[in-house]
Amino acid sequence: MLEDRIANLLDISQWKLTPYQILTLGFAGLILIGTLLLMTPLASATGQPLSFLDALFTATSAVCVTGLAVVDTGTYFSVFGQLVIISLIQAGGLGFMAMATLMAILIGKRINFRERLVMQEALNQLTVSGVVRITQHLIKITLLIEFIGGTILAIHWYADLGLQGIYFGYWHAVSLFCNAGFDLFGSITGEFSSATRYVDDILVNLVFSLLIILGGIGFTVMADIWTNRRFSKLSLHSKAVLVTTFVLTVLGTVVIFLLEYNNVNTMAGLSWKGKLLASYFQSVTTRSAGWDTVNIGQLTDATLFFMILLMFIGASPTSTGGGIKTSTAAVLAAAIWALIRGRNDAELFERRIPYSIIYKAFSLMLISAILVIFVTMMLSISENQPFLKLLFETASAFGTVGLSTGITSILTSTGKLWLIFTMFAGRVGPVTLALALALKHRKGNIQYPEGKMIIG
Amino acid sequence: MLEDRIANLLDISQWKLTPYQILTLGFAGLILIGTLLLMTPLASATGQPLSFLDALFTATSAVCVTGLAVVDTGTYFSVFGQLVIISLIQAGGLGFMAMATLMAILIGKRINFRERLVMQEALNQLTVSGVVRITQHLIKITLLIEFIGGTILAIHWYADLGLQGIYFGYWHAVSLFCNAGFDLFGSITGEFSSATRYVDDILVNLVFSLLIILGGIGFTVMADIWTNRRFSKLSLHSKAVLVTTFVLTVLGTVVIFLLEYNNVNTMAGLSWKGKLLASYFQSVTTRSAGWDTVNIGQLTDATLFFMILLMFIGASPTSTGGGIKTSTAAVLAAAIWALIRGRNDAELFERRIPYSIIYKAFSLMLISAILVIFVTMMLSISENQPFLKLLFETASAFGTVGLSTGITSILTSTGKLWLIFTMFAGRVGPVTLALALALKHRKGNIQYPEGKMIIG
Ligand SMILES: [K+]
Ligand SMILES: [K+]
Repeated sequence: MLEDRIANLLDISQWKLTPYQILTLGFAGLILIGTLLLMTPLASATGQPLSFLDALFTATSAVCVTGLAVVDTGTYFSVFGQLVIISLIQAGGLGFMAMATLMAILIGKRINFRERLVMQEALNQLTVSGVVRITQHLIKITLLIEFIGGTILAIHWYADLGLQGIYFGYWHAVSLFCNAGFDLFGSITGEFSSATRYVDDILVNLVFSLLIILGGIGFTVMADIWTNRRFSKLSLHSKAVLVTTFVLTVLGTVVIFLLEYNNVNTMAGLSWKGKLLASYFQSVTTRSAGWDTVNIGQLTDATLFFMILLMFIGASPTSTGGGIKTSTAAVLAAAIWALIRGRNDAELFERRIPYSIIYKAFSLMLISAILVIFVTMMLSISENQPFLKLLFETASAFGTVGLSTGITSILTSTGKLWLIFTMFAGRVGPVTLALALALKHRKGNIQYPEGKMIIG
Repeated sequence: MLEDRIANLLDISQWKLTPYQILTLGFAGLILIGTLLLMTPLASATGQPLSFLDALFTATSAVCVTGLAVVDTGTYFSVFGQLVIISLIQAGGLGFMAMATLMAILIGKRINFRERLVMQEALNQLTVSGVVRITQHLIKITLLIEFIGGTILAIHWYADLGLQGIYFGYWHAVSLFCNAGFDLFGSITGEFSSATRYVDDILVNLVFSLLIILGGIGFTVMADIWTNRRFSKLSLHSKAVLVTTFVLTVLGTVVIFLLEYNNVNTMAGLSWKGKLLASYFQSVTTRSAGWDTVNIGQLTDATLFFMILLMFIGASPTSTGGGIKTSTAAVLAAAIWALIRGRNDAELFERRIPYSIIYKAFSLMLISAILVIFVTMMLSISENQPFLKLLFETASAFGTVGLSTGITSILTSTGKLWLIFTMFAGRVGPVTLALALALKHRKGNIQYPEGKMIIG
């Protein structure tokens, strides 16, 4: 009897964890392992071990593919430390993509058949061969893209940096595809300098932005494009994601260009080509990647605020990126457009968007905004920094972006803890919320009659 | 024939204006008249006439019962100018309350019978006797409350200020009930000092806050309480408004107290009684009234940010106050609460809230947020001020609050124009939006099949 009980306790399937509990615990476990590894003297370039809080911050930032850094990755860590970080990034990025993709499939299945039983079956199917197959596909595609990108960068940098260039090429390709925002350039151009040395290097800008966009577009969209080739044949979701990504990228490029082209601390010194390239790259990177080729701390207030909005929207579902997602933004835009035109139905690409999805999109947006606002308020109590910088830092953590005006390393311990919480919530939150919405919907015991309210 | 045409042109009923066009034009006309009057040398204390832009700003601020001021009301204007301003406030406040109330009745009627014809009838009925009767009620109640409040203040201030105290009593009672935020204390305690001299005067604080709350609670709620007396008998709308007002007032008092009690520039020097009173008054006044008893420019960043949120929510529908409204906040809270609990229906006081109202509340919130964000971005381009102060000023203009960190009078002309636009949009916008929602809903020609989207 006792043996049976112990066997039961050890049998994880008996714990009846929900998928979002698995997701949350998995990420937390990975962060804990990363923290312990980064605390060893082996991980530090000087042999001086990192404090628990800074190790926890770095591990969380890596697993959540955020990129905010309390110490400079290129100079503080040994090669071992850097390999630990890139492994955490790869595991976090892949793990998140895999979980999100499986969930999207589950949710899709459920919507199709509307049967609890069917979903149970789908879950069981997925746990056996489906999960393995999909995850294999995902790993293959990820490694292939990272290998191609890394090889191009390695060749390009070999002339300049020798063997270090090859190491840099592959290391950064992983970080870029995973939208992680971590970089090693601190050892060349000084701490926290990110990719500023490549501000007008066309090849680097194109390879970087392509890796970021592919990583941020989402596995489902990539699979859809691979299968259907033509835009008209793509799913509503893929169309919305592609168009929103395109519109936000162009809009971001134009706005950043207009706000910064005569800023002497950022782009004024660049050629027209350099200005356009820098505007484009910052536009791409702000929606979750977190690399920068201009000094973020020197941008105008208007640009910083605009970037906060881009960071809040972020990348696309089932990708390595964060934020409320491009598809959510598309649904919100469609809903408001319908409202302005006095229509009953919000429509996208000749499809009606169900109320339940609109409701979900609005709720996700509001809950996310409340989170960012609440953390910013807490930071404005604990930190002695301008308000806009704190809001920027929080939005960056929430959207798992990793851009910073330069205040991450000088935050108080309280501030660091708030950002650790925000990075984790920003990474795990939206998906588990979506999951909770898909799985937990149960009717209340009583259904009340409708009530009237005056709005606005 | 020609005579007929001219007669037709002069007959306003032939113009086929929608109610929200009437509302918009009415407010714009009132602002124009006010601007012209305030530009006369007669309106100025020195005889030096006000510039067109500053007169337009002041008239807009008065008609929209905002209270932002580019010149100090108590020192810059003559008694004639001050009477013009208080008349604009009274007309703007009453006009808005009347329009909003009539619309609420119309919308209510429509929801009951769901017939376009019925609404048309209701509109016709209202234009004849209904409008007159309701407006009479409204004017009576408004004047009664203002007279009682004014008399108490006049008696209280007579000992201190003599005849000026009596003038001040009634003038401020109107400004307070209309949640206008304009004051004349600049002539006593210096320009833009608002009610800081009464920071620990219990009688003034109680009369002020009571006038503000009565003005901000909305005519429909006042009528409901007058008719039904007991809370349990009130409509869902009244219950939601009362509870949200209470919760926000208490929450505001506690948060402001905690953030400011040891701020040497605001409350540190006050007694416990003074601290509590100041926290309570700022909590009440921030949700649309716009008077202050502490120096807003000296508050901590955290307090300013918290106040921005309160200003954004604002007062209740069919009141003189602005913002997205307490009822909207209540619906949003209920929707998110339902989501967190995994329920299908958002509920308030044992009533199910229809999806259409939730949709409306979310949309109003998002459109308002986009407006505030957009204007703040524009200001951060034209003004050389800290970001938080610009966001505060914009939220204050949108919520027709009138609190300022002190930058209103030093804004550029571009900045003033943006705030004029925001005050007008913040006043007229939410209601016309609600109206548009109620009147314009028409089916699209084609109803598309539902489409799937992945959110978050
Ligand atoms: K990132
Ligand atoms: K006001």
